[in-house]
Amino acid sequence: MLEKTFVALITDFGLKDPFVGVMKGVILKINPAANIIDITHNIQRHNIFEASQVLAMSYRYFPPATVFVVVVDPGVGSSRRPLLVITEDYYFIGPDNGIFTTVYEHSEGKSFRVLHITAEHYFLPMSGSTFHGRDIFAPVAGWLSKGIESNRFGQEITDYKRLDIPIPQVSDRVIKGKVVCIDVFGNAITNISKEHILKIAGDVKNIRIRFRDMEFCMVNYYEEARGIGIAGIINSFGYIELFVFKDSVSAKLKIRIGEDVYIS
Amino acid sequence: MLEKTFVALITDFGLKDPFVGVMKGVILKINPAANIIDITHNIQRHNIFEASQVLAMSYRYFPPATVFVVVVDPGVGSSRRPLLVITEDYYFIGPDNGIFTTVYEHSEGKSFRVLHITAEHYFLPMSGSTFHGRDIFAPVAGWLSKGIESNRFGQEITDYKRLDIPIPQVSDRVIKGKVVCIDVFGNAITNISKEHILKIAGDVKNIRIRFRDMEFCMVNYYEEARGIGIAGIINSFGYIELFVFKDSVSAKLKIRIGEDVYIS
Amino acid sequence: MLEKTFVALITDFGLKDPFVGVMKGVILKINPAANIIDITHNIQRHNIFEASQVLAMSYRYFPPATVFVVVVDPGVGSSRRPLLVITEDYYFIGPDNGIFTTVYEHSEGKSFRVLHITAEHYFLPMSGSTFHGRDIFAPVAGWLSKGIESNRFGQEITDYKRLDIPIPQVSDRVIKGKVVCIDVFGNAITNISKEHILKIAGDVKNIRIRFRDMEFCMVNYYEEARGIGIAGIINSFGYIELFVFKDSVSAKLKIRIGEDVYIS
Repeated sequence: MLEKTFVALITDFGLKDPFVGVMKGVILKINPAANIIDITHNIQRHNIFEASQVLAMSYRYFPPATVFVVVVDPGVGSSRRPLLVITEDYYFIGPDNGIFTTVYEHSEGKSFRVLHITAEHYFLPMSGSTFHGRDIFAPVAGWLSKGIESNRFGQEITDYKRLDIPIPQVSDRVIKGKVVCIDVFGNAITNISKEHILKIAGDVKNIRIRFRDMEFCMVNYYEEARGIGIAGIINSFGYIELFVFKDSVSAKLKIRIGEDVYIS
Repeated sequence: MLEKTFVALITDFGLKDPFVGVMKGVILKINPAANIIDITHNIQRHNIFEASQVLAMSYRYFPPATVFVVVVDPGVGSSRRPLLVITEDYYFIGPDNGIFTTVYEHSEGKSFRVLHITAEHYFLPMSGSTFHGRDIFAPVAGWLSKGIESNRFGQEITDYKRLDIPIPQVSDRVIKGKVVCIDVFGNAITNISKEHILKIAGDVKNIRIRFRDMEFCMVNYYEEARGIGIAGIINSFGYIELFVFKDSVSAKLKIRIGEDVYIS
Repeated sequence: MLEKTFVALITDFGLKDPFVGVMKGVILKINPAANIIDITHNIQRHNIFEASQVLAMSYRYFPPATVFVVVVDPGVGSSRRPLLVITEDYYFIGPDNGIFTTVYEHSEGKSFRVLHITAEHYFLPMSGSTFHGRDIFAPVAGWLSKGIESNRFGQEITDYKRLDIPIPQVSDRVIKGKVVCIDVFGNAITNISKEHILKIAGDVKNIRIRFRDMEFCMVNYYEEARGIGIAGIINSFGYIELFVFKDSVSAKLKIRIGEDVYIS
């Protein structure tokens, strides 16, 4: 069995309050050898979809057997279940609200299991029901990373929740996708991947991007768009993204998540 | 003696400037085996009270012998003393401006000592007198975590400074407390604890919260207040907090720290 | 050869997107023993000058052999070269856009080498050309910290790029400098050092600071300026800084980077 030294965190707790620091304290009190890495704590509050996208973009870059703790949890304290997801390479701990949808999708055709965490003797004594990050998810990550076998945390389930994630519609010569994310630079990231494009065109460079009533062309790197305004690019995660060199396209055009993007 | 591998940081330095990174460099240059954890660096600038509250909420979740370095220090460079506080379980390093008041309160009846740090040979050579986080507190944390005995940093004192922290007034059937903190979600946290309530009521659920001319009831978890607007909850640290499900009560009502809250 | 366990990061990626977390994953997947420290990820977007100043302020406080990865890289994907700079004490990895100018200046008269990183077999397989932090700089830092000899990453070059950094003009009795940085507290930091002042005055205390049509005096620590408004101080990095006790001088006077400051 692989050593599970690494624990990576994604939350919507922000960096002002001590919530993230407290979770780290809890993990290290149980397993002083854990190596904890922040992915982000600035997920938009309660935005489960954004958390699932950020997780999808990040997790495969981490060492095998990393334990990901993902806490965006508007239903904390209600009957929603705490989960431990085990794939061929990684472990994921968080609420059963669809946050692991992208992990389930990536794992189709491979073996993976979803456990409902019920072994309360691994939890902290509960004070209130508003901070399961501290009282359930962090201690389970601590014990799991310390070597407790995953089966001891609960039973396998199959009715775990999935988000309805928008998938691009590919027809003969056109792809219809959506803006799914706006990054901190204001770049507007779509759900249309390089693979989608290669189904309708021989080359990514020859396509046109239609957004509202405008058309944009593709470039290979950001600086290539110096002086030409808005352009498209295959971003570093393999998706089409609209951008302006050294500026924010999303601010310029007031782009909102969910807007349609067409490729032809 | 316990190993003091863990060094946890609380400051008002923010995350834009390299101040926190420099403190970590200083600690690791002295003790490469130190394991440094951020609690928060976004304490409101110069807000000693907020820092003492954040410390009170966090420190007991950390491994025994953790060294806490707390730097919110408007008097840096003046005659205020640098302190090393030693409790049964932890070490605390920071300025003598009342920032450790909650630690003193928690330690009443137990053994604890407060040392005035004077052993300048453990400091960095001073360049300017504006960054004791780097020049005094970080190197002392480095040497302490490396195993230097605490007595070698200075002499015990008893006239250390305490903050005047507001305490709820509990009468026969009413508690008068205050809003002491507004978290990043806009929840308004009071100084009224579950223990205070149990002095006037048999059950936390049966109380009413009065704020200005409004009355609110209590719920068990956030989602229970979906559709009912503002409610109270015992938060994860054991205190009454006002909130709105998926919204900011403090923005809605323009709540300010220090406002009165009544329980009956 | 020294162990290169420590990898310190400076970027303009911010803390919302998972870019920094992904870089850490890449480094740890290659070298699980790496100890990664954040200096800052909140460099103003594309501000190479600011990154070079922050690096200059920080790096000498870190343990010997620390590997600094500095990614502020508006030219990513263009022909600008990736660099590995080796000084007597440290390693620096980042783009050849002048970001290491202050390192070159500090190293004058000492031995240092600048390598053009070309050994693509150490890179991640490229998906897109927009995220060299993940695909080039992080893996090279991983392999270097793991013990791969620096010569194996590329050939030495001498035509690396330098920024034109403003230097104060020192005449007989006057120094003309500039505001080069505004920190998170609103303090306005100049490029005039204690050493510059000692060329025209016997003592730092006796000088006057002229800014626009105002004159300010010097104090020894922040609190000394309580009630006297704006004052100057030698800050913790040895430079003159304008400040107001517990307030922001830059907000008060709408100070902009690049404004002239005179000392007499």
